[in-house]
Amino acid sequence: MNAEAMLANPGSTERTRVRRIPELAVTDRSMLHRVLDAGLVGHLALADETGQPYALPVAYARDDESLIVHGSTASRLFRLCAAGTPVCLTVTLLDGLVLARSAFESSMNYRSVMVLGHCSVLHGKAKERGLRLISDHLMPERWNEVRKPSAQELKATAVLELPLDECSVKINADGPDDPAEDVELPVWAGRVPLIRQWGDPVPSADLKPEYGAIPEYVRRWNQRTS
Amino acid sequence: MNAEAMLANPGSTERTRVRRIPELAVTDRSMLHRVLDAGLVGHLALADETGQPYALPVAYARDDESLIVHGSTASRLFRLCAAGTPVCLTVTLLDGLVLARSAFESSMNYRSVMVLGHCSVLHGKAKERGLRLISDHLMPERWNEVRKPSAQELKATAVLELPLDECSVKINADGPDDPAEDVELPVWAGRVPLIRQWGDPVPSADLKPEYGAIPEYVRRWNQRTS
Repeated sequence: MNAEAMLANPGSTERTRVRRIPELAVTDRSMLHRVLDAGLVGHLALADETGQPYALPVAYARDDESLIVHGSTASRLFRLCAAGTPVCLTVTLLDGLVLARSAFESSMNYRSVMVLGHCSVLHGKAKERGLRLISDHLMPERWNEVRKPSAQELKATAVLELPLDECSVKINADGPDDPAEDVELPVWAGRVPLIRQWGDPVPSADLKPEYGAIPEYVRRWNQRTS
Repeated sequence: MNAEAMLANPGSTERTRVRRIPELAVTDRSMLHRVLDAGLVGHLALADETGQPYALPVAYARDDESLIVHGSTASRLFRLCAAGTPVCLTVTLLDGLVLARSAFESSMNYRSVMVLGHCSVLHGKAKERGLRLISDHLMPERWNEVRKPSAQELKATAVLELPLDECSVKINADGPDDPAEDVELPVWAGRVPLIRQWGDPVPSADLKPEYGAIPEYVRRWNQRTS
């Protein structure tokens, strides 16, 4: 595996210091933000009262130096998060496969952020703003078009904030790093990128013909940089 | 959100029963396998001695009714997994966005599997076979070409097995499910698929010209069904 960057640390502690392959640790705050802004789904780890851990897929958005996540107030595990149980939110972007000449050096290109901490619950305007940030992150420019949450819908939704205080960033962006003797082996080596893009929008079966034009902003989503 | 299927349960317990939106629970064992076989990266949740949970991105493969993961024997968290601490391995495939007429009904299309349990450590032939399964899963047909792990490389790698005993599958594959009054709103609604495909292979800078032909099996990777 290979390093991409190693700069000043974005909020590392003994718990988040990248121990295993420290040259993969990226310590540039702007890179932390870029990875989080490029991701769509995170995995929120928490343990329940029995000590059983869970990794829950969650939508999220970055709000400056925090992450915002939302979930149902009826969810047992989400209620634990709201109560401040320790969590870890990991966002991983798989960028491709690294085809080395050996099984051992074969790996993946990826960008991954891990955030440790405790969530706090957002209320009132901050809560509504959090929901909008998640919409803006996943579906840019959609918010102004949709019906906003009703009081009842807001009541059914918990919006949590997790500060980006304690976090790590790992990036592997290079090709294989085979030792000299393996480079002589008669096998192709390199990397195979994984490409992610939006496909053609599929209209809802109940869409009124007069509202059938696909919004321009949806077409722009494939121009987002990641 | 909408249901896709609801059949006999693949190994549900009180802990993995899908409580929140039970119509999203998919209880077909073959669907469990298909989601796991289509995924590339999972997130392994575990808590350390202090109770701090982590979600670690991991490569994995399915071996019949188990998952295989590998990691460094030098990794603190991986050693905890090897010692049998409770874990949760979640595989999530994001398939697209669901653009409803309201913020509240807007959601994602996804397939997600959560497996709870304890890992056991594989040794000897079972360990080598586990490594091959991960290679075959991520890089089909690559194994025969690469240099196999040396004794030292095997020593540096832990290969763990997690049985598919206690698991849940959630799938959301449909478009928006807006209430009748929202269907009247003057806004486009539908879903936007997220497409994942392999890009053009990039040769390693140190690739010998005589080994420069891109393997046919790499070209076939985009024909894998997911």
